[in-house]
Amino acid sequence: MTYCVGLLVDRGLVFMSDTRTNAGVDNISVVSKMKTWEVAGDRFLCLLSAGNLATTQAAIALLDERSIAPSERQPAILTQPTMFQTAKLVGETLREVICGGAMAGQMADSVFSGSFILGGQIKGSAPRLFLIYPEGNFIEAGSDTPFFQTGEHKYGRPIIIRTYDRAMSLEDCAKLLLVSFDSTIRSNLSVGPPIDMQFYDTDSLAAGYRQRFDLRDPYYTAISEGWSDALKSAFDQLPAFVRT
Amino acid sequence: MTYCVGLLVDRGLVFMSDTRTNAGVDNISVVSKMKTWEVAGDRFLCLLSAGNLATTQAAIALLDERSIAPSERQPAILTQPTMFQTAKLVGETLREVICGGAMAGQMADSVFSGSFILGGQIKGSAPRLFLIYPEGNFIEAGSDTPFFQTGEHKYGRPIIIRTYDRAMSLEDCAKLLLVSFDSTIRSNLSVGPPIDMQFYDTDSLAAGYRQRFDLRDPYYTAISEGWSDALKSAFDQLPAFVRT
Repeated sequence: MTYCVGLLVDRGLVFMSDTRTNAGVDNISVVSKMKTWEVAGDRFLCLLSAGNLATTQAAIALLDERSIAPSERQPAILTQPTMFQTAKLVGETLREVICGGAMAGQMADSVFSGSFILGGQIKGSAPRLFLIYPEGNFIEAGSDTPFFQTGEHKYGRPIIIRTYDRAMSLEDCAKLLLVSFDSTIRSNLSVGPPIDMQFYDTDSLAAGYRQRFDLRDPYYTAISEGWSDALKSAFDQLPAFVRT
Repeated sequence: MTYCVGLLVDRGLVFMSDTRTNAGVDNISVVSKMKTWEVAGDRFLCLLSAGNLATTQAAIALLDERSIAPSERQPAILTQPTMFQTAKLVGETLREVICGGAMAGQMADSVFSGSFILGGQIKGSAPRLFLIYPEGNFIEAGSDTPFFQTGEHKYGRPIIIRTYDRAMSLEDCAKLLLVSFDSTIRSNLSVGPPIDMQFYDTDSLAAGYRQRFDLRDPYYTAISEGWSDALKSAFDQLPAFVRT
């Protein structure tokens, strides 16, 4: 499994992804699920992967035109006029990989499926955030649902639902998502550190701050330990139950 | 789906279950998933059901000996010498129903499966808590894992993991479980109110306090609304993230 979140706020976008991949609990690896593209002053894109690693890596390699000599590459993902067209290209590429595998003799199996969260901004438009399905279609985050999660989303969802506010700073988003990730990592072995985080500041049209947190990171430790204490004091604040 | 929790603490047991059953999102009903038996001064048992309703209802009907005339019933579940034997009887009955359905021509399908959380106390032994699988086998809660959840357990698990303490009062357990249930109900349509709660006080050998909470219950409302505020203030207490 995996846990990825893309969060849209007024000041920009925050992306976070774990790095655990596994082929059974006895075969785990660390692989980044976060890919970014930047044409400074023109666009910034961030893609978070979930699902079968061979599928999502193949789709990203195609988007990067890695089948062409490096000197001849002009990736179409960097030249789409809008984020909508970019999401369409990513979805078509993902579907192509999944269908290509099926036609090459693979048994139809959801194990070879995948999905993406895509966010970013292209000059002339606002930042946008999409969830792209294995079928190649996609949905966009709006004011009603301003974030997307993929993978093991259940453990870490309540805290996002209760705390999210679109006026939040990107720093507060980082704090919120680290709490959400820590709750997930404590509950589910298929989600694991280190955690990759990427900021995008609205209208910067360039990659924002990026950090990788491992379990020894002082800020991550402060959040993980502090949250247990903070929750206990929040719990104590609630009115006591009385048998009637 | 369903959400049920049984929690073992020094002072006793607390059981909580939702009441939503569904055959698709357009066909929902309210059914209690909590069944209790009591022989005052001798034993108290509480069973929480998850899974296919026909399966779990049939198993409970068999345990109640509802196939026999009321005047002739002497349910074996009320005469087992230990909680272990009681769990074994419940497990065998559950497996019998599931296998019986399969042999009567049903296609093998996990949809007709079910599971139980069983807790209680029999005179002469300590309170005990079990999770009973569709195969009829079971595991017992100990000091390392002092609670069991069935159904949609993921949303409400982090708060239990972080807040549980075996020295808690049953009233604090009620508060904790209501937070856990509220987080689940806000995130997942397949878990719904009202919520049934049953206390068992260690060595009382009788049914403890019982309450049903609907969404308008003043205490449930106070927890649901208070928890959002308490979480926000807990969140504000955490150290701010700073780009380095």
